[in-house]
Amino acid sequence: MGFDRLIEKIKATKNPSVVGLDPKLDYVPEHLIRDFLQEDGCSLKAASRAIFAFNKAIIDEICDIVPAIKPQAAYYEMYGYHGMKTLEKTIRYARLKGMFVITDGKRNDIGTTMEAYAAAHLGTVRVDENELQPFGADALTVNGYLGSDGIRPLLDICKAEDKGIFVLVKTSNPSSGELQDQKIDGVPLYARMGDLCEQWGADTIGKYGYSAVGAVVGATYPAQLKELRERLPHTFFLVPGYGSQGGGAEGVAAAFDAQGLGAVVNSSRAIMCAYQKEGCDPHDFAGAARREALRMRDDITSYLHLG
Amino acid sequence: MGFDRLIEKIKATKNPSVVGLDPKLDYVPEHLIRDFLQEDGCSLKAASRAIFAFNKAIIDEICDIVPAIKPQAAYYEMYGYHGMKTLEKTIRYARLKGMFVITDGKRNDIGTTMEAYAAAHLGTVRVDENELQPFGADALTVNGYLGSDGIRPLLDICKAEDKGIFVLVKTSNPSSGELQDQKIDGVPLYARMGDLCEQWGADTIGKYGYSAVGAVVGATYPAQLKELRERLPHTFFLVPGYGSQGGGAEGVAAAFDAQGLGAVVNSSRAIMCAYQKEGCDPHDFAGAARREALRMRDDITSYLHLG
Repeated sequence: MGFDRLIEKIKATKNPSVVGLDPKLDYVPEHLIRDFLQEDGCSLKAASRAIFAFNKAIIDEICDIVPAIKPQAAYYEMYGYHGMKTLEKTIRYARLKGMFVITDGKRNDIGTTMEAYAAAHLGTVRVDENELQPFGADALTVNGYLGSDGIRPLLDICKAEDKGIFVLVKTSNPSSGELQDQKIDGVPLYARMGDLCEQWGADTIGKYGYSAVGAVVGATYPAQLKELRERLPHTFFLVPGYGSQGGGAEGVAAAFDAQGLGAVVNSSRAIMCAYQKEGCDPHDFAGAARREALRMRDDITSYLHLG
Repeated sequence: MGFDRLIEKIKATKNPSVVGLDPKLDYVPEHLIRDFLQEDGCSLKAASRAIFAFNKAIIDEICDIVPAIKPQAAYYEMYGYHGMKTLEKTIRYARLKGMFVITDGKRNDIGTTMEAYAAAHLGTVRVDENELQPFGADALTVNGYLGSDGIRPLLDICKAEDKGIFVLVKTSNPSSGELQDQKIDGVPLYARMGDLCEQWGADTIGKYGYSAVGAVVGATYPAQLKELRERLPHTFFLVPGYGSQGGGAEGVAAAFDAQGLGAVVNSSRAIMCAYQKEGCDPHDFAGAARREALRMRDDITSYLHLG
């Protein structure tokens, strides 16, 4: 309950970070793509198979040092239903290797439709006599613009299946303030959304004090990170924007509590494309990903007192 | 440009409505499911194939009288990647039959990731020497909580490929007011989001005066529909919540301009499940869908002066 499973993996690896697997085909080394293009032509299927091979190799290299992956749904949808097959396989493989999986889908809809998203990404679906798991992640990012009845079906699954959600609160992009920073009776919209996270999560609090309703808060806004950490004591943070988007480890430290818990920091491209930056042999892309993941862990934890 | 293609189909059919294809397996008649369960077992594949057969039969029956369909992504994701294959096939089939397709995905993310969603649902993706179309809808619903840089990649595709988007402004669900009705300097958040739609669409206005950036405004809030129709003269409306959610045709009339244009009204379950309500032979489910679609057309247009 309440992200306890994620927190235990963070404690075991002493690493409060998550690797974003957002693999555009451009990121995949040439040698890995070639065979698939030969077998399946220049198709979405070939691209999706190459991406799974890429993901699998990275998961193999990082699963003992990183607690979680965060596949971004957009980069799988981009390759059509073959891409969605790769999403499913990636999730299953990472969980098999003991990792916690956060599907970054930012899903949102009215209540009845949210039930379908909840079943798709976190739950099960009945087909005649079988109960089947479509994607089977541990957590899903969601957008709360529709209010409580779009969130409730997710809470039911969080409780029944020990899953979690992360609600967009203050996003990492440059224009996030256009709406999120606007004040309602003196309180910014992002803080209102944060307050709703505390409400929604109130009866799902786990043994480390955090609920199953987390918040997405960007590393690019360290002042808001600090403000929200104080305002939302039971809300676990997923922090994107470290590294390539400009968020630094010192600012990110504000996302954590005094025990060094309360957040996971995401890095995607810097890890997937570490082999390009290193300039190493592209066959060693997964090794380069591991080296970058270790560097990131050390960078972030140098500012924390991890219990 | 600017929903001209949709508007021309509305004028040709004299029908400003859209059929939501949100097909849970429960909606599909028994006789249609049976063969697929026998061939593929009680699997997500069998469910997805049955759903495509259901969709195809409905599209065949309504394509001459209804201008557009709106598949809801959640109900396809619910059946895993097989479901996403059915989504793709449904979109292709409806377009082949001359219908305009709005994928209801409510997607949202930061700019670079939104490029991936835009390519997935409205654009193309390059794999080596081929330029491929993953889902290929005409329009996509999106959530604007992240502000302008999450919308910009979609505008590029709207212009280059004559596509459209519908931004969530005032949603049809009971709790939509929790955040959307909150006032910022005296203006409700939904109206702010509406104003952004006018800005985002400003240089995509087509010959009927509407831009490629539409808005989702629920039939369940007729006062806001009227207010927003006046406030947003270049914004085409997608109106959910008619019928099963309680929105009536008289209230919905406020979504339209003096020429009877400016909006499409959605109905999903009432049409897909018309055969259950009628109590007709389930083999006639598509015929019942057609009869309900005609009834809905007549109900809505009785309040309009369609040019």
